[in-house]
Amino acid sequence: MPTEDLSAKGLRIDDLQIKGYKLVQDPKAFCFGMDAVLLSGFAADVLNEDAAGAGSLCDLCSGNGVIPVLMAAKTEVSHIVGLEIIPENVQLANRSIEMNELSGRVSMVTGDLKEASRLLGKSVFDAVTVNPPYMEAGRGLVSPNTRKACARTEILCTLEDVIRESSRLLKPMGSFFAVHRPGRLTELLSLMRQYGIEPKRLRMVHSHIDDPATMVLAEGRSSKGRQLVVERPLVIYDELGNYTPDVKGIYGD
Amino acid sequence: MPTEDLSAKGLRIDDLQIKGYKLVQDPKAFCFGMDAVLLSGFAADVLNEDAAGAGSLCDLCSGNGVIPVLMAAKTEVSHIVGLEIIPENVQLANRSIEMNELSGRVSMVTGDLKEASRLLGKSVFDAVTVNPPYMEAGRGLVSPNTRKACARTEILCTLEDVIRESSRLLKPMGSFFAVHRPGRLTELLSLMRQYGIEPKRLRMVHSHIDDPATMVLAEGRSSKGRQLVVERPLVIYDELGNYTPDVKGIYGD
Repeated sequence: MPTEDLSAKGLRIDDLQIKGYKLVQDPKAFCFGMDAVLLSGFAADVLNEDAAGAGSLCDLCSGNGVIPVLMAAKTEVSHIVGLEIIPENVQLANRSIEMNELSGRVSMVTGDLKEASRLLGKSVFDAVTVNPPYMEAGRGLVSPNTRKACARTEILCTLEDVIRESSRLLKPMGSFFAVHRPGRLTELLSLMRQYGIEPKRLRMVHSHIDDPATMVLAEGRSSKGRQLVVERPLVIYDELGNYTPDVKGIYGD
Repeated sequence: MPTEDLSAKGLRIDDLQIKGYKLVQDPKAFCFGMDAVLLSGFAADVLNEDAAGAGSLCDLCSGNGVIPVLMAAKTEVSHIVGLEIIPENVQLANRSIEMNELSGRVSMVTGDLKEASRLLGKSVFDAVTVNPPYMEAGRGLVSPNTRKACARTEILCTLEDVIRESSRLLKPMGSFFAVHRPGRLTELLSLMRQYGIEPKRLRMVHSHIDDPATMVLAEGRSSKGRQLVVERPLVIYDELGNYTPDVKGIYGD
């Protein structure tokens, strides 16, 4: 679909600032934020360590497909699937996949993540990524816009659904990568261990070095070894309000 | 006991650098480290916020009593009890209590923390502090010196024992403060929630800003509200190898 048609539909095309990749977004729905960018960098660091390259990756709560496209840009993973329940979001993602000529590597599946392993198979992925809704249902303000609400609040799935299904999708020794709010860290780590995804690495994200964390990046492995590392903090802005070299590195990978 | 007698017994007296307080230590046993100092600062910040002052505090795995003495120095808590299983450690702690003229506020009890609530009472403390042994039994090197080994390795108690008993000792809305290794964070947070001590605040401790965390400070509350905050990181050394202002502030409170 030509660019002018997208624009007539109220859509916009954002530059992902990597390999010339672009993303079609609907400003009326949920647009990606820094959490997606940081998660893709956090996961790519690990997946690129493996010289053979991870063969397959599934992104849950995939929305407009920003993470599948970023993972295609940042890694050599050969087979990337995004699972998303809202058909309009999948349509947007498919436009981005086509626009970036990624149809051979990246695909979208429309479906409910609570049925992910039935739809996609058990123990079939080397890695799972997820930027889930952060808010528990019944807490805080719920956006009146349904697509935004589903992206922000656990209306269609809970964190437990996400982790249970991730555990089913992952091969033994497969890697799980999530971004979440620090307020949910206890639940995140407890559920990961409960479902056999042992937490291996955390990185706290702070807007400024003197602020509390606003996000937490978590890596787990479907294995039993217990050796969690809390990495050096990831600070977004320096004292002048500019991106730190760490963040520039993640954006400019 | 005069200083020269202590020295003849191979003991030493260390200056705690606060209010002129001192601590009797046995270099053959376990001597306190920065973790005890950081934990006391982390707990004191909260306990001093309450204008009425916390009435009572129990320190578990109290060893030579460094945390009870530091908490007496840093707070107005009127009743501080240290529970320690090894009689020689309790003797050292009692000498420090006497030397600092704290007998009216600080006392030691010799006993097994697995029986803490039977020895000290249920739901009786406003706060519990603990700097437990970090290593799981059966992992890593176990010190051949028994007192050192018990301080470092879970020979006489496990993390689950510590948290279960803390939960019993605490009044409703009582505060729990622990220092531990990041490697045990999943277990720490999971057990706290399991035993009704909801994690409220974490602070990661990094030797340098570019290093992984070496310690984690955790605060919990015996209440149901879920709102964990991960505070700004606590960095020990600046780029010149000097203590950061944060650490100087904690030492020089």
